[in-house]
Amino acid sequence: MYRTHTCGELTLSRVNTRVTLAGWVQRLRKMGGMTFVDLRDRYGITQLVFNQETSPELCEEANRMGREWVVQVEGLVAERYNKNKNIPTGDIEILVDKLQVLNSSVTPPFTIEDESDGGDDLRMVYRYLDLRRPVVRRNLELRHRMAMAIRHYLDAQGFLEVETPVLIKSTPEGARDFVVPSRMNPGEFYALPQSPQQFKQLLMVSGFDRYFQIVKCFRDEDLRADRQPEFTQIDCELSFIEQEDILQIFEGLIKFLFREIKGIDFKEPFLRMTWADAMKYYGSDKPDLRFGMKFVEIKHLTEGRNFGVFDQAEYVGAICAPGCAVYSRKQLDELTDYVKRPQIGAKGMVYIRCEQDGSFKSSVDKFYTQDDLKAIAAACQAKEGDLILILCGKTMPTRKALCELRLEMGRRLGYCDKNKFAPLWVIDFPMFEWDEETQRFYAMHHPFTSPKQADIQYLESDPGRVCADAYDMVINGVELGGGSIRIHDSVLQHRVFKALGFTDEKAEYQFGFLMNAFKYGAPPHGGLAFGFDRMVSMFAGLDSIRDCIAFPKNNSGRDVMSGAPSLIDDEQLDELCLKINLPSSKK
Amino acid sequence: MYRTHTCGELTLSRVNTRVTLAGWVQRLRKMGGMTFVDLRDRYGITQLVFNQETSPELCEEANRMGREWVVQVEGLVAERYNKNKNIPTGDIEILVDKLQVLNSSVTPPFTIEDESDGGDDLRMVYRYLDLRRPVVRRNLELRHRMAMAIRHYLDAQGFLEVETPVLIKSTPEGARDFVVPSRMNPGEFYALPQSPQQFKQLLMVSGFDRYFQIVKCFRDEDLRADRQPEFTQIDCELSFIEQEDILQIFEGLIKFLFREIKGIDFKEPFLRMTWADAMKYYGSDKPDLRFGMKFVEIKHLTEGRNFGVFDQAEYVGAICAPGCAVYSRKQLDELTDYVKRPQIGAKGMVYIRCEQDGSFKSSVDKFYTQDDLKAIAAACQAKEGDLILILCGKTMPTRKALCELRLEMGRRLGYCDKNKFAPLWVIDFPMFEWDEETQRFYAMHHPFTSPKQADIQYLESDPGRVCADAYDMVINGVELGGGSIRIHDSVLQHRVFKALGFTDEKAEYQFGFLMNAFKYGAPPHGGLAFGFDRMVSMFAGLDSIRDCIAFPKNNSGRDVMSGAPSLIDDEQLDELCLKINLPSSKK
Repeated sequence: MYRTHTCGELTLSRVNTRVTLAGWVQRLRKMGGMTFVDLRDRYGITQLVFNQETSPELCEEANRMGREWVVQVEGLVAERYNKNKNIPTGDIEILVDKLQVLNSSVTPPFTIEDESDGGDDLRMVYRYLDLRRPVVRRNLELRHRMAMAIRHYLDAQGFLEVETPVLIKSTPEGARDFVVPSRMNPGEFYALPQSPQQFKQLLMVSGFDRYFQIVKCFRDEDLRADRQPEFTQIDCELSFIEQEDILQIFEGLIKFLFREIKGIDFKEPFLRMTWADAMKYYGSDKPDLRFGMKFVEIKHLTEGRNFGVFDQAEYVGAICAPGCAVYSRKQLDELTDYVKRPQIGAKGMVYIRCEQDGSFKSSVDKFYTQDDLKAIAAACQAKEGDLILILCGKTMPTRKALCELRLEMGRRLGYCDKNKFAPLWVIDFPMFEWDEETQRFYAMHHPFTSPKQADIQYLESDPGRVCADAYDMVINGVELGGGSIRIHDSVLQHRVFKALGFTDEKAEYQFGFLMNAFKYGAPPHGGLAFGFDRMVSMFAGLDSIRDCIAFPKNNSGRDVMSGAPSLIDDEQLDELCLKINLPSSKK
Repeated sequence: MYRTHTCGELTLSRVNTRVTLAGWVQRLRKMGGMTFVDLRDRYGITQLVFNQETSPELCEEANRMGREWVVQVEGLVAERYNKNKNIPTGDIEILVDKLQVLNSSVTPPFTIEDESDGGDDLRMVYRYLDLRRPVVRRNLELRHRMAMAIRHYLDAQGFLEVETPVLIKSTPEGARDFVVPSRMNPGEFYALPQSPQQFKQLLMVSGFDRYFQIVKCFRDEDLRADRQPEFTQIDCELSFIEQEDILQIFEGLIKFLFREIKGIDFKEPFLRMTWADAMKYYGSDKPDLRFGMKFVEIKHLTEGRNFGVFDQAEYVGAICAPGCAVYSRKQLDELTDYVKRPQIGAKGMVYIRCEQDGSFKSSVDKFYTQDDLKAIAAACQAKEGDLILILCGKTMPTRKALCELRLEMGRRLGYCDKNKFAPLWVIDFPMFEWDEETQRFYAMHHPFTSPKQADIQYLESDPGRVCADAYDMVINGVELGGGSIRIHDSVLQHRVFKALGFTDEKAEYQFGFLMNAFKYGAPPHGGLAFGFDRMVSMFAGLDSIRDCIAFPKNNSGRDVMSGAPSLIDDEQLDELCLKINLPSSKK
């Protein structure tokens, strides 16, 4: 061992103890014949002192050190004159009498401090230096502690962690698979799992009863800020349970994590909301409930006043922004521009200012009387000083636009506090989603999701009204995870495949081995999966999941540090019986 | 919840309690107006009773059930007349008054019992049924408990589990990588990691101090019984440590596992043996120390007697098999055939029987006097009744053949008890291995392994004599894991690359980003990795690692259950800019 203690543990109780420390030179200052060095390791920072007068040679040697050199020192622990109250070791320093440089360092391309002068791209190239910054390292320490806590909770609940294969069979449904050519089976490919869905259901068929796995999954999609080609799921499945059991067990998990990791105790049960209500009141299947501003439907209050835009709209919806009646023309124009952006797609925005004197000012004053506006304000429970914002159009798109407007107002009003957590179960998802383009239904969750018992009768006659035993856990507008009760009855499974437009052959080809397994006594079962990266980044208060991943990839799926992906040898391609066939545009 | 209790927990204390159970029908017997059903779940088996007299309809319904049907029952717990002492629930049975069939089952292709009538291949196709067999499921339960215990120990020792990427850069050295074509970067490939070696060393450069990960690794090799294309490692790395620290910490881990999992307490430190001694005395770098039969070199005792075979041999080595002087001619011939098999490659075998009367009988009696044989027997510490077996030839191949002979004798003599564990550290591995074919040195461990301080001077002049700070943990002749102290000094690293015949360009191309990272203050560090599959299978007493893997692949790398690998769509190949180019022989 190169040290007797870490750089994070020495305090006044160790004064006069002889110690050996090892770590990195964080900072070096010369002051009045003394050289002070901040020595850093994972555990903290300890101040070293070199005395020019008593040990001139040693001090000279120390003065030659640069930032990020790796050194080992011996010396006595002493009380500091100028104590640093910001760090646990701030009361002491080490009077060094022996110094060994273990390694030098060239000058790092950016400062290794919580606030670095390195840009994102540069820090990604030198990720191993970026990871030295305590603010980044703490995210990974948190990740470790969360994974430990999750395993502890699930183990105590009787779950077994079972590793499922990474090299699996490709299934064409859903997002794109990454594939792996097989050398031993030329022309054939493995796929990397998008989730262990089929394997975990097989484990239920096998009687494993309660399964979990913290597991890497893969999706070859075009990436966004919060997506990575490889990501980590907390994947779970249980047998002989109903939806209520699953909600209880995993609500328990989330509460346990908040208590263990953040010291937050949720005493009340989590709120539950049907998907229909979430859409109606928040325009989203993952509403951010850190604040109110519920949608109010006011179509009936706007009709017959000759305002064609509202009269022709299928839907007129309002939100009430507390205290925003003071918004200037410019601020209102900004909001209008915001909702008219192509990503949001509203045609325009109507406002009603609820003035302090009880009167109303609106952009549609000429169509609506003060009494009309008062009625709208009353429906919105608006008070003097509030601002009502109204969008209209086709129902679903308008709700989605109003959702964006609500979130924007929430941010402007400072309602999106990262230290406040509003957990929610969204339940009763629709079973199917109609796709206009291909003119068919798709499974909203996946084709093994069980319809609600009461809705099974509509599977053929009115698939659109069938709800599923599917549920999402949402916190602060982020979908942390979701799942469903699965179909364990093969007759019902066939009806669902049919509703999805699968021929028997297609169902057999894609899901044959799972369907075959179900013939041998499949128990009732269900499960869910949490996105672990998202969960950690929520607990860490991060904006991107990248900061809680040790070695993330960029938006092109590239690891700019190691240079992956890269070209491979022709010899290796030959062994795999593959030829690269770049279109001329990509050559 | 479909049940109030599991099938493994009801005992006499619950008599007269009303319970609901759910599970699989293991067995059904009709006896004197009663139907007895063994209901099975993960937790155990509980006997159900249906009474023809009191509930004829219910009993009829029960009689219609088949093996592996999934049912839910309600009833009263009652004391059994014929108690079954073999199971924890053997004192009670359930008097069923309500039965719901949750799912039927077609007849399974083999019996779901500890002793199954299904062959290996059939059980692999129906792995989800094979996994229902308690004997298989217990291996995976053990695996879960071991993973939990390992994480518990390492966490307590300050290790952080950090997930390293699965999609990494291909490095041409070593075994074959599996590769993954990148759609976003056409013509380029990721590789799947053979180990997270470079990433864990980067984490040390990042100051993570103590890292571990239980992680899937991948190797595209031709498979043997104990190899899988994907396998799981317990991967560890530490900073500011020396070899002794690593041996202590991980010896601690193994002792902890034996204590926690198997109730075996190793009080003494594990034996340590240099690689040179392991080769000299056991002909193997992973000797099985459950028994003795150390090699004895007897070349000097055989010379000058005109026995050309020995006289011309570089090496003559003997082992003494206790009590085997009674071996018949046939048994001795069998052994001779055994060592002459091409995999072992000995030319022949000489024996000396140490008879009970103090005389010796040998296959080379005409060259050696009784005194000569007595001297050899004395060197071998052979007693009356023992059998001395002798091989000769070039040193290394003969040692390896003698090793096989020793292991065979160990098996014959019943020394290979699966419940006995003989742990050992093999240390001081040679740094380099000379390859006759390519006439160059290869790194025995990997090119980042540190040579021993005292041997660095011979790096250029005599690379073959340089030993490394490398170590393996061996138990019962199985290499459970190994590792090394790494080079953290770039000057030394260059000298090692040179000794390995790497040009600067090649070293830069293959290891550039790691070498670059080392310029920024790499700490002294080292680590090791355990094969988790092997570890579990040793603890479970299995012959193959397959039985502790939920969904293993066969010797062709195929998952016969799901049919992976498989063909993929032309569309998908086009997206990846790939063409399959089968040689005509494989079309």
